[in-house]
Amino acid sequence: MPVSRWAPDARERLETAALDLFTENGYEETTVAQIADRAGLNRATFFRHFADKREVLFGGEDVLAGLFGDAIGAAAPDATLTECLHAAFAAAGVAMTPQQRAKAARRVLVVGANTELQERGLLKHARIARSVSAALRLRGTDELTARLGAEVAMLAFSIAVERWLKADHDEPFPVHAATALSDLQARVAGLDSRSRLPA
Amino acid sequence: MPVSRWAPDARERLETAALDLFTENGYEETTVAQIADRAGLNRATFFRHFADKREVLFGGEDVLAGLFGDAIGAAAPDATLTECLHAAFAAAGVAMTPQQRAKAARRVLVVGANTELQERGLLKHARIARSVSAALRLRGTDELTARLGAEVAMLAFSIAVERWLKADHDEPFPVHAATALSDLQARVAGLDSRSRLPA
Repeated sequence: MPVSRWAPDARERLETAALDLFTENGYEETTVAQIADRAGLNRATFFRHFADKREVLFGGEDVLAGLFGDAIGAAAPDATLTECLHAAFAAAGVAMTPQQRAKAARRVLVVGANTELQERGLLKHARIARSVSAALRLRGTDELTARLGAEVAMLAFSIAVERWLKADHDEPFPVHAATALSDLQARVAGLDSRSRLPA
Repeated sequence: MPVSRWAPDARERLETAALDLFTENGYEETTVAQIADRAGLNRATFFRHFADKREVLFGGEDVLAGLFGDAIGAAAPDATLTECLHAAFAAAGVAMTPQQRAKAARRVLVVGANTELQERGLLKHARIARSVSAALRLRGTDELTARLGAEVAMLAFSIAVERWLKADHDEPFPVHAATALSDLQARVAGLDSRSRLPA
């Protein structure tokens, strides 16, 4: 494939090539030059899109941080905290389509096999959480409620991703996320200082 | 200082030397050889204690993961989830002494200035959370409650560390942690799906 100088889909081609090579040969063994080559692009183009080799796996997280924050900001003025989080999860459906599911499953395997990648994933996760809590703060939520809401949202999100990847049907991601959030809310009473643990 | 072949306090000396050098010259600019030298030890001794340069800053987190898990496991059989988390925080007092406070404040500055270190910190944070949720699971707590409890515990812990470092008095760390947990529990009702956000 010739190196095209004008590649409007360069970012996506690099992401696909990287995931393919990481799956085939391992993350450590793959170089940026190989990724660019597989995508029919050059190394300089890779670094115009991604700061380092790890970043090529986490573009989706940067998109999510933006989607979550925007959706919470755009929720109705009288929306509850839960309604704000549901709005965020609904927005995630744009990025987490049924077509993305197989790719996401492969990505989880690659990331899980490498500590460096897990670390970068946690950094991205923390950034999404900050985007959620900042958007809640802008709505007038007090700081601790905003941070608590963001952590619970991120836990619901993680649980929903696990279920989405394991499901044997194509239920949309936002449905998984809404269910996970409800499941956590049903357990919130257990965090009350007076309640006993279930036997 | 001569390189002593028998150094029972080698680990602590390396940690102190590293923090001093990172503060004086920056994390990036400091080498493992310099850290060992400052501690009066050699490079091989450093790597017997720490897998890489970053690890020297996070020994405390590994200790906490153990303390938290053990304390939850040792709590009374009929302890509530909250009582289990208080037991964990009480145990943290052994590691987070008033003497450690100045060191912890310097460490926060070093870690905050470097993305690699933030990533390692998040990995350690995730490991402590897993230790908490695993210990709760062993007590018979269902998986989602255990994960939710661990996330809320870690948020309380983070808030407590922030307040502990900012405080102008020597209130013991476990008191800060217990207060932070209560503050979050007072906001847990806001996560109920029916409640409105405060105006």
